[in-house]
Amino acid sequence: MARLKPLSGFPEFLPSGQMVENHVTRILEETFELHGFAPIHTRAVEPMTQLTRKGEIDKEVYVVDRLHADPHDSRSEKDRLGLHFDLTVPFARYVLENAGHLQFPFRRYQIQKVWRGERPQEGRYREFTQADIDIVGDQTLAEHHDVETPLVMLSALERLHTELGFPTVTMHVNNRKLSEGFYRGLGIENPMAVLQRVDKYDKIGPDAVRDLLVDELSLSDDVANKCVALASIQSADDSFIAKVRDLGVTNDMLEEGLDCLNRVVTAVNKAVPGRMVANLKIARGLDYYTGTVYETELTGHESMGSVCSGGRYESLASDGKHVYPGVGISLGLTRLLAPILSRGELSSSRSVPSAVLVAVNTEQDRGTSESIAQTLRSRGIPCEVAPKADKFGKQIKHADRRGIPYVWFPGVEHADHRDIDTVKDIRSGDQIEADAASWNPPAEDLRPGVIGTW
Amino acid sequence: MARLKPLSGFPEFLPSGQMVENHVTRILEETFELHGFAPIHTRAVEPMTQLTRKGEIDKEVYVVDRLHADPHDSRSEKDRLGLHFDLTVPFARYVLENAGHLQFPFRRYQIQKVWRGERPQEGRYREFTQADIDIVGDQTLAEHHDVETPLVMLSALERLHTELGFPTVTMHVNNRKLSEGFYRGLGIENPMAVLQRVDKYDKIGPDAVRDLLVDELSLSDDVANKCVALASIQSADDSFIAKVRDLGVTNDMLEEGLDCLNRVVTAVNKAVPGRMVANLKIARGLDYYTGTVYETELTGHESMGSVCSGGRYESLASDGKHVYPGVGISLGLTRLLAPILSRGELSSSRSVPSAVLVAVNTEQDRGTSESIAQTLRSRGIPCEVAPKADKFGKQIKHADRRGIPYVWFPGVEHADHRDIDTVKDIRSGDQIEADAASWNPPAEDLRPGVIGTW
Repeated sequence: MARLKPLSGFPEFLPSGQMVENHVTRILEETFELHGFAPIHTRAVEPMTQLTRKGEIDKEVYVVDRLHADPHDSRSEKDRLGLHFDLTVPFARYVLENAGHLQFPFRRYQIQKVWRGERPQEGRYREFTQADIDIVGDQTLAEHHDVETPLVMLSALERLHTELGFPTVTMHVNNRKLSEGFYRGLGIENPMAVLQRVDKYDKIGPDAVRDLLVDELSLSDDVANKCVALASIQSADDSFIAKVRDLGVTNDMLEEGLDCLNRVVTAVNKAVPGRMVANLKIARGLDYYTGTVYETELTGHESMGSVCSGGRYESLASDGKHVYPGVGISLGLTRLLAPILSRGELSSSRSVPSAVLVAVNTEQDRGTSESIAQTLRSRGIPCEVAPKADKFGKQIKHADRRGIPYVWFPGVEHADHRDIDTVKDIRSGDQIEADAASWNPPAEDLRPGVIGTW
Repeated sequence: MARLKPLSGFPEFLPSGQMVENHVTRILEETFELHGFAPIHTRAVEPMTQLTRKGEIDKEVYVVDRLHADPHDSRSEKDRLGLHFDLTVPFARYVLENAGHLQFPFRRYQIQKVWRGERPQEGRYREFTQADIDIVGDQTLAEHHDVETPLVMLSALERLHTELGFPTVTMHVNNRKLSEGFYRGLGIENPMAVLQRVDKYDKIGPDAVRDLLVDELSLSDDVANKCVALASIQSADDSFIAKVRDLGVTNDMLEEGLDCLNRVVTAVNKAVPGRMVANLKIARGLDYYTGTVYETELTGHESMGSVCSGGRYESLASDGKHVYPGVGISLGLTRLLAPILSRGELSSSRSVPSAVLVAVNTEQDRGTSESIAQTLRSRGIPCEVAPKADKFGKQIKHADRRGIPYVWFPGVEHADHRDIDTVKDIRSGDQIEADAASWNPPAEDLRPGVIGTW
């Protein structure tokens, strides 16, 4: 084989890293299901017409063609397929396609790979996994789902913190109506243009944002300063309201946004104190959000940017007769894990699931070892049988190289009986007599654990 | 949105179907891990040079291009990427790329989607999920792994049978050396050509195979008849050996194949009686198998063809200095599930994970309902809170439409106390007083079950 270099932008893990990713995925799935979210998977491809509806994104799409497509198949350009670049576009299509079979409000989670033809760089991948939750209504969707959705994601992130040592998180929240109402109250006619520039606040700083607003949008210094002042407001309590009022702008949509943001931040912080901050510079680049918007920072790793973002959209999908509003959050699983797994900073306590290696006395006695392994497995203990009846020292080394903590030694066979088995903890060297029908490893040794630090 | 028709060949499921697929996947993962197989995922794309190494397959490959690839990027044709069409080619590449970090024999499982640009038809998909297990050695791999690998897959299939009511299976096994040695003993110089025609035995019948051998390969009637006679031999015990000997062909490679096949069938049937049959017409179309080959039929659904196939290959991969022999089996998960899920014959007992819907007395009391839900979740009981403080009849209907078996009614709030909660089994109508801190649903109601029949 010629090409052995990894493909840039397509991260893959060694088994010990994959086990960590699977562990994290399991925690996400469990949390989402505890909250009543049902799983779906969508196909990897969508028609290019769907993927390119938003002009901005089409440069990043991978198109997919059959190598030897039928010439008389004459698939037209608009029927061409592309790999999905997020899970929202496919989900919107899925909701429309299956609306008659779904019960609304419909709560689903979806953990799948997505693809973007971006130039690979730290934190940017061409293939990566996202974990999305969304709640979608038929015609309407109550505001309390704007509280529920971040609480579900925060609950998952809290488990990653307490169980796997991930950093704590802070979710930063804003409301599009607040920003848009404020801008309109200032007499600005194209609030989206302002929002797109405010979105760069963290990257380029407040002064540069003000300059953009003045230079590119011809806002007056005073108006531009107020937009930047709004963006600089944040608070973990309701004090953001007074700070906004101090800027002296009045507008009905602004009031609506303030009220809604206040209710969301208050309710979330009541449930999980200190995890949510009203942050009025949060804009989210994509244009389909219409209300609450979320971003999430890892404490101590703020430079990574948001690992988990989303918001409320008044129309996820529409078929003319029905409109489906929704609220959702997407966790960038690969973005969260790949850097730390690739550097080996987070890993699995062993490279295989096996808690026990069952040694083999002689190749003729392999059946005995297999039968012991089968007994252990029937009791939920992952194990494997040594591949060769080597000297025991070599078999122990086989276990040690994989991080398998226990080696099981079958008793020697005699004409009329078999000696009692023993099991050795190869870390401590302790060896005890044991019966495969009753022995248990300590709970912490049953499955590989996650080791390492952020 | 314009296009609402499903894409032919890209099956998707409703949540109740997806939950069945996830349940099956979980059983596969658990079984593979109990046997010490470590998980890996590989990227969806491989260089086309890898995917088209075998001339036959390239017509089925999907090529992947960036919609707006840099013109000065000038990715050459051979660096083009395509979607993988199986999990073996990516695994071989992964082994070479990571050989220095892997411990051999290396046992891995891999459950991922693959893509083939085939014309969609019943049982043929353009996107489908495979579940592969392989054991790969460095330079050598002992024969007992030819026994172990099918036993692991049979163990998973047995769980699907006993826990989810899937049909029982029979694994049909042959050995390439047996067939090749037999053909060579008959003086045939191109055994692969014979094998490719014998591979059609089930589709076109023995007479048509004989005609192909005579017409296309110019074999004599007598030689062609013996090839067909060999292919018609099957037995669950070692009687296949005598039947082969009756055909009067002698050859060393034939003897080697007979011995190996006998050891594999005997050992597997000792562990799981009646699950394996020596079937000398099993050929497997792909040319990389060099020893044992497996196919698997579902009892009563033989017309579906093999749902689970694999074999031994003396060289999965090679980097010049090292050769990596392996043995593996691949389960066609979508092929197994999609027809029966699409027809709704197999489904989930409810369309959501929730065991309980917590009713809401008034919107002001929503916090009470959420706190009850949180208590239930902290004890591992999946639940959701009613989206609206409707009349209880409507809230019960909300649960009923999703198949949620229990509705929880929070006690009414008073100035100084709250009435005791009650929980209602909406199937029986039984309603009892309950405390969220201690109530449990019966174990069979905790998670959605799989219902329906094959």
